[in-house]
Amino acid sequence: MRASKLYAPTLRETPADAETISHRLMLRAAMMRKAANGLYSFLPLGWRVIGKIEKIIREEMNAADGQEVMMPIMQPGEIWQESGRWSVYGQEMMRLKDRHGNDYCLGPTHEEMITDLVRHEVRSYKQLPLLLYQIQDKFRDERRPRFGLMRSREFIMKDLYSFDRDEAGMKVSYQKMYDAYTKIFTRCGLDFRPVEADTGAIGGATSHEFTVLAKSGESAIAYCSACDYAASEEKAELRPIAAPEEEMLPLTKVATPGTSTIEKVADYLKVPVEKTIKAVAYETDGGELILVFVRGDHEVNEAKVLHFAPEAHELTMAEGGKIESAGGCPGFMSPIGLKDGVKILVDATVMNMKNAVAGANEVDHHYTNVNPSRDFGCVTVGDFRLVAEGDPCPRCGAKLLMTRGIEVGQVFMLGTKYSEAMKATFLDEQGKEKPLVMGCYGIGVGRTMAAAIEQFNDEHGIIWPRAIAPFEVVVVPVNAKDGEQYKLAEEIYGELKAAGVDALFDDRPERAGVKFKDCDLIGYPLRVTVGPKAVKENMIELKIRRSGETIFANREGYLAKVREKLAVL
Amino acid sequence: MRASKLYAPTLRETPADAETISHRLMLRAAMMRKAANGLYSFLPLGWRVIGKIEKIIREEMNAADGQEVMMPIMQPGEIWQESGRWSVYGQEMMRLKDRHGNDYCLGPTHEEMITDLVRHEVRSYKQLPLLLYQIQDKFRDERRPRFGLMRSREFIMKDLYSFDRDEAGMKVSYQKMYDAYTKIFTRCGLDFRPVEADTGAIGGATSHEFTVLAKSGESAIAYCSACDYAASEEKAELRPIAAPEEEMLPLTKVATPGTSTIEKVADYLKVPVEKTIKAVAYETDGGELILVFVRGDHEVNEAKVLHFAPEAHELTMAEGGKIESAGGCPGFMSPIGLKDGVKILVDATVMNMKNAVAGANEVDHHYTNVNPSRDFGCVTVGDFRLVAEGDPCPRCGAKLLMTRGIEVGQVFMLGTKYSEAMKATFLDEQGKEKPLVMGCYGIGVGRTMAAAIEQFNDEHGIIWPRAIAPFEVVVVPVNAKDGEQYKLAEEIYGELKAAGVDALFDDRPERAGVKFKDCDLIGYPLRVTVGPKAVKENMIELKIRRSGETIFANREGYLAKVREKLAVL
Repeated sequence: MRASKLYAPTLRETPADAETISHRLMLRAAMMRKAANGLYSFLPLGWRVIGKIEKIIREEMNAADGQEVMMPIMQPGEIWQESGRWSVYGQEMMRLKDRHGNDYCLGPTHEEMITDLVRHEVRSYKQLPLLLYQIQDKFRDERRPRFGLMRSREFIMKDLYSFDRDEAGMKVSYQKMYDAYTKIFTRCGLDFRPVEADTGAIGGATSHEFTVLAKSGESAIAYCSACDYAASEEKAELRPIAAPEEEMLPLTKVATPGTSTIEKVADYLKVPVEKTIKAVAYETDGGELILVFVRGDHEVNEAKVLHFAPEAHELTMAEGGKIESAGGCPGFMSPIGLKDGVKILVDATVMNMKNAVAGANEVDHHYTNVNPSRDFGCVTVGDFRLVAEGDPCPRCGAKLLMTRGIEVGQVFMLGTKYSEAMKATFLDEQGKEKPLVMGCYGIGVGRTMAAAIEQFNDEHGIIWPRAIAPFEVVVVPVNAKDGEQYKLAEEIYGELKAAGVDALFDDRPERAGVKFKDCDLIGYPLRVTVGPKAVKENMIELKIRRSGETIFANREGYLAKVREKLAVL
Repeated sequence: MRASKLYAPTLRETPADAETISHRLMLRAAMMRKAANGLYSFLPLGWRVIGKIEKIIREEMNAADGQEVMMPIMQPGEIWQESGRWSVYGQEMMRLKDRHGNDYCLGPTHEEMITDLVRHEVRSYKQLPLLLYQIQDKFRDERRPRFGLMRSREFIMKDLYSFDRDEAGMKVSYQKMYDAYTKIFTRCGLDFRPVEADTGAIGGATSHEFTVLAKSGESAIAYCSACDYAASEEKAELRPIAAPEEEMLPLTKVATPGTSTIEKVADYLKVPVEKTIKAVAYETDGGELILVFVRGDHEVNEAKVLHFAPEAHELTMAEGGKIESAGGCPGFMSPIGLKDGVKILVDATVMNMKNAVAGANEVDHHYTNVNPSRDFGCVTVGDFRLVAEGDPCPRCGAKLLMTRGIEVGQVFMLGTKYSEAMKATFLDEQGKEKPLVMGCYGIGVGRTMAAAIEQFNDEHGIIWPRAIAPFEVVVVPVNAKDGEQYKLAEEIYGELKAAGVDALFDDRPERAGVKFKDCDLIGYPLRVTVGPKAVKENMIELKIRRSGETIFANREGYLAKVREKLAVL
């Protein structure tokens, strides 16, 4: 393609309402434009990226025995009534009525639709397993759409649904998809992790999120420096940290005036914060008091605390009066001396501590030589803290690292949730009717594109991985009005195309500086520059966008060099 | 692909509510399933066909300098208010409100959206021409969806929009698209005609419909047996037919008892119907009487009559009293002797007639030797009849043939209708602001698929043109349980795949009869049958679906034979 014929209106200015890197760069690099709140049009460059991601997805879905179908976007309300989700989905579902007044929605997902499709046709175990997928626009009426493609109201999704005869079959399908997703994001050139995840509104037992690592990511991720383990900050499992062997000394109450924070008491008593015990007092929306104790340098994981209060939906900080009525003293709390019946959660690491410092439930006083296993009495012990960098991996024990990530895909074991509600059954070898056992597997295509930009960018613009770049190589004559440069550049462009390289010829009669800026902003992996040196000294410049490295090759050797460089980009 | 892994539940029974051939066959051959009223899910086989059609469209759009983009399906009401079409579109537009109560529609077409996209960015004549397209689901809330993909509520469309600096540029873009459409439908293997068409709700001056010829088509088409001319029955231009040179004889009134129809009077007077003049009396919805005269064997073209009564929207047959009050006699009418001021339209062919028979405006009487140019007085002469097989082509004079057709694409010269309403302008060389001159060009992708089936089918099922068949070749071991047959068939399948042939291996352990029936129903262009003859006598059977022809080839020569046959299918 020739840049003079390419519709790619790049922007020098950063658009005002774009908050994230990917949103800003997708607008500036002419990948997309805003059409309305939370609705975007892809321009030719952006659509090429989407096309390449879709091709990779399609190839891996097909290789994993997925069969492509296409269901309608408009879905009749009846099937959502049948599954029970019509009322559950709430305002996020885009709803409409047709001219006859019948209810429809714009599919946010297709579990109901696919179950309805196969329940009329899949009758025998011989037809299983069955894996059907589509790549299609989905709709979600976000309360506050933002971050460009990260949270838009219409978005492209690949959704595959698996149907198996039993749990074991479902697990095979799940693993197939897990492996396919790993291949897809690897082929896209992304640094990512499959992360153990909650199942949320989709339901089912087991789920993984595929998360692209990026500093700007929406969620915190703990991942192992040695093995494959990764989990969201809230979901990460923690092993209790063993304390050094020490002899237990006698519990001693000491005066610690004005030390109502961990930092102050550690400072006052000249002990490291790792030797102190921190208390946090919560009140549930049901009015129950929950006191949580973690090591002084740790943070409470509220999600895990909530799992211990199943009737509660929300935690707020408890008020002083509430704490006092339980026998506690705000700022100087410990489990020692509280009234009976108070809910006390103690992190397992705390239980291993020796001769620690904790509150004495009395203003301006702490205990030293606290040995929880000896002194705490009846408490609930568990994993109640947030993971922190350096924690041991629950799988292999190596150090965990912390990062942030962007969810680009999620896989779910659904089981029989939908097949039972919608009576999608098959007959097994014995002629017995059984519900289909399902899984579902989504990839946000536009989100993958945005995540790639969040992961790979610098102050000049996007840095595309080769596999999903709008073009792999851009050929730039430094001065397009110079006949010799133009001719040589055009020849090189032709040769690259003939060699199967996805190349763009920047034949625009612009100044070199303008073209180079566009190249960096749009982020082509490799730039071939044809200037005076190329014409006079047979020195063709190759510039690697990612490393900034510039190398020279001659007319005879440049193609091999281009291939060599592209292979690792 | 292996048929044992392909989700293709064919049906033996014809589904009850499917009215057309393509609708029935798409259901029976497992191409699609109904999801709701006017909404369909494509199954894997059908989706492969759609994919092949889309690929052809994409290649030709790109070759014609089209650039692929993707606009959202959800469109804000504002831009439709701006163009003035929010109120015009009526009930066919699917409308919805978001959670904040804002108006949206599901795009039935994208003129507003694309004009909004480029008006912010196209500023200079240097950026023109610009051709942008997308392939996307469109929505239309049909009052009565039916005929499967022919009139569904959600349908796949390719829509391209051209932007030029002037009328001349628009015509170049129009011709480019006209040529690209010709290539697309030719590559799809379809027998089609570009037909002059009305512009309807989209607007603009000139338009062509691309119409696939099929007996079951929705509209009647006249096309030339010699040149490229084609037009819809209503739009076809007609040259007046010259009558043989004859001397005009004196007008004579004769008694013709009981001859109130053309057939009866021709029979009574022993003249051919081509020597008679037929009268039809209409009343407009405004109450005006319009009398139309055509040759006895011709039919009135009501669309053209309506063009002569611009204030009228509808024509009904006039009542006897109305005719009498104008001086006419129902069943025995002619322009001779009617009261002044009556609107009389005479087809130009009638004006050329000599010594014809017409009514005498008196019960049971006709005139003979009517010579309209001599006898009719003040009448409006024009082209008021429907085209008929055998009429001369308005371009080359050769005979016109009649057929029926299905519209699969339409191209429009829009001019500045949208750019003026939405202020989409550019600056020309002189720095003068001018509105963009637009064209728009649609192809119904699903409709193309359905039209192909309407054109190519027989009592056994679909007969796909090779280019858009779900698979080009199916390899069938007659007895899949016979190890030798299975092995040979599998080898042949592997060789075909390696040779780049899109082949399916029907490895199902079904009876040969069942598999052959499925092959014919689904309509693979070529079947390679591996039975006892293949194993024992080195005779591999090739069956051509279209001709029914069966040929044999040996192991060494079959691949060349397959290639030779596919090339012409």
